[in-house]
Amino acid sequence: MNPVGKPGKTGSLMPVEVALARLLEMAEASPIAEQEYLPLAQVEGRVLAEDLISTLDLPPWPNSAMDGYALNLVDWTGEAMTVSQKVFAGQSPQALKPGTCARIFTGAPVPPGADCVEMQENAEVQADGSVRFIQPMKIGQNIRPQGQETTVGELILPAGTRLGPIEQGLVASLGCAGVKVVRKVRVAVISTGDELVEPGQPLGPGQIYNSNRVLLCSWLERLGCEVIDAGILPDDLATTRVRLGELHDVDLILSTGGVSVGEADFLGIALREEGELALWKLAIKPGKPLTFGHFRNVPVIGLPGNPASTLVTFALLARPYLLRRQGVQDVEPLKFPVPAGFVWPVAGNRREYLRGRLEQGRATIYRNQSSGVLRSAAWADGLVEVLEGRTLLEEDEVVFIPLSELLG
Amino acid sequence: MNPVGKPGKTGSLMPVEVALARLLEMAEASPIAEQEYLPLAQVEGRVLAEDLISTLDLPPWPNSAMDGYALNLVDWTGEAMTVSQKVFAGQSPQALKPGTCARIFTGAPVPPGADCVEMQENAEVQADGSVRFIQPMKIGQNIRPQGQETTVGELILPAGTRLGPIEQGLVASLGCAGVKVVRKVRVAVISTGDELVEPGQPLGPGQIYNSNRVLLCSWLERLGCEVIDAGILPDDLATTRVRLGELHDVDLILSTGGVSVGEADFLGIALREEGELALWKLAIKPGKPLTFGHFRNVPVIGLPGNPASTLVTFALLARPYLLRRQGVQDVEPLKFPVPAGFVWPVAGNRREYLRGRLEQGRATIYRNQSSGVLRSAAWADGLVEVLEGRTLLEEDEVVFIPLSELLG
Repeated sequence: MNPVGKPGKTGSLMPVEVALARLLEMAEASPIAEQEYLPLAQVEGRVLAEDLISTLDLPPWPNSAMDGYALNLVDWTGEAMTVSQKVFAGQSPQALKPGTCARIFTGAPVPPGADCVEMQENAEVQADGSVRFIQPMKIGQNIRPQGQETTVGELILPAGTRLGPIEQGLVASLGCAGVKVVRKVRVAVISTGDELVEPGQPLGPGQIYNSNRVLLCSWLERLGCEVIDAGILPDDLATTRVRLGELHDVDLILSTGGVSVGEADFLGIALREEGELALWKLAIKPGKPLTFGHFRNVPVIGLPGNPASTLVTFALLARPYLLRRQGVQDVEPLKFPVPAGFVWPVAGNRREYLRGRLEQGRATIYRNQSSGVLRSAAWADGLVEVLEGRTLLEEDEVVFIPLSELLG
Repeated sequence: MNPVGKPGKTGSLMPVEVALARLLEMAEASPIAEQEYLPLAQVEGRVLAEDLISTLDLPPWPNSAMDGYALNLVDWTGEAMTVSQKVFAGQSPQALKPGTCARIFTGAPVPPGADCVEMQENAEVQADGSVRFIQPMKIGQNIRPQGQETTVGELILPAGTRLGPIEQGLVASLGCAGVKVVRKVRVAVISTGDELVEPGQPLGPGQIYNSNRVLLCSWLERLGCEVIDAGILPDDLATTRVRLGELHDVDLILSTGGVSVGEADFLGIALREEGELALWKLAIKPGKPLTFGHFRNVPVIGLPGNPASTLVTFALLARPYLLRRQGVQDVEPLKFPVPAGFVWPVAGNRREYLRGRLEQGRATIYRNQSSGVLRSAAWADGLVEVLEGRTLLEEDEVVFIPLSELLG
């Protein structure tokens, strides 16, 4: 029995949902347990380790939603009223003197005894400074009650929430100068293949530049990971073993390329000998072959090496896996059904993820959808999902996944 | 004549499109001109300063899209063929010996003289090591031609492109170890109001915690800005003048709160006296009042101070302004028409941006849409645009803007 999951029947392909469910299960089985307390200025992109419970009412007191006048409605007779105090935001008002009103500004606490705020546009200031209210008014109008947003003891953000600008603002509004977050996932990025050369170096015969390292390192940082750049693994078994062994303290080894090539697959050999290895044939295009396994006790995900395949498999499978290891529950990108602005005549047995744009509400695609093409992704705004086993005509519905949902 | 734009007729509201067009025009009039060369590892979120032109063909040579065998179709008779060489990715092949085939792996250069690659699944290896091909083949099959993705001299990314993970990968694939980017926009963030206290400090009577500073500083960094945290401006004219004067070398002063409050509006007074000030009443909700002006020569944008208003006006107006100052052309978020899963009975004269989610393909909204509520935004996946002057019924079409499109 293979603990990383049985492969499907020989020759059959694994649906992407099945692969995702297995990866998420494995992520949940090895969550990052360590936590750290960080000041708010350092939590960008990190994941909340504990429920955030409010220790405040927000607003802390009833306050005015308008610039205007606070009064008690029972005092209103239609006659002009004396202005007995002026309350700016940040001030602490006196109790309202009966029969009078208070000048008040947006955000200022409503004086005790007032039950209504009239906006200044509906007030007539008299020559003597008193004010007449000319419209009917209602109790509570233009007053934001204490605790309208939040009351003491309420759950504001659950553990597992990713902390973007909005969540950070929310934490600040509760007065917290910092929060406990989950330790960063440590991810080692390795590329395999003697054909790879790093940018800036001269290109020899048969060689190409390594684009996946840059793509993945930058992307992983957006996902709150600590990236260990483990370079290019040469096509040599002894070196492969040594280099993998050096990565014993990471949470994941993420490799690209190599594992599907039988004869030159030294990463695969090393995993089989000192860990375990499952080769999944996924029903997705680009990106059919995906590896999941362990080297000694370190999980390994092996993505296919063509840049567009790397991109699609990372977006759909490795990204949610890494977020879930940090405890994030909500790992699904938003998906929008839109009409297709193109024809896709070949009904394949794999779900296709085309690089596309939204134009006049319809999905259009890049002219060249070859799996080697990273330009298509730079041109694109999203992935266009075309279901397996169907010939797509114009105006048929496809699913559009904004790249912004996947890249952060 | 007011150079920052005439206000609309008294009492009329400025459509958000008009405000955006004016802001973008002003951004284009003062672009960030300085450039810097940065290594790829440091360009995350930055904006390309020069067109990126390819100096390579990609792929640099015809290569195999499969693991299999390369042959010349004229040599194929149906008989088994001798395997005369083996080509791994990263190797430089010999010219193909006539009448033979070459073992070849994905990504390896196709030997000169071969015009077709057959996948290994369609090859029968004989006892003597020779190989028989059993399916009809076509010239060019499974070969990725030289320059399929990119040819020398092609424009790959225009100046003004934001460099995310995909673009960085693309730059790497061309062998560039770095690129010229636009200098970061320097943005000073100031909050106004004596009621504000920073998180971690004790809260006095009438005071609330400052959430906008944290929200905006974090958001600005995602937009490639250098953030100068200029703190909380007290309600005092002399101090306001001094503090604004200290910000003479920033590209923008971004303030929140204060400017709409006549009597305590020291920022407004300072701008009127030593610069210029336009108060726009926008036809949006939340977020009606927006200030644009200058202090001495530094542009100032004043956002309303309620957190949800700050969020909406920053997302729809300040964000595109800041991107355009860096030369970014594509500043519009993706917008998706979806059916409403709620009723919105009040037809107002302002376009509303409700904090919503997508549930079963329909837009739903947070129960409390008060402009003081930042929790609604943390709950939300997107902004739901409800057009002015209309009563919205369930299943009516609304526009959904994913927050991910706005936050990065």
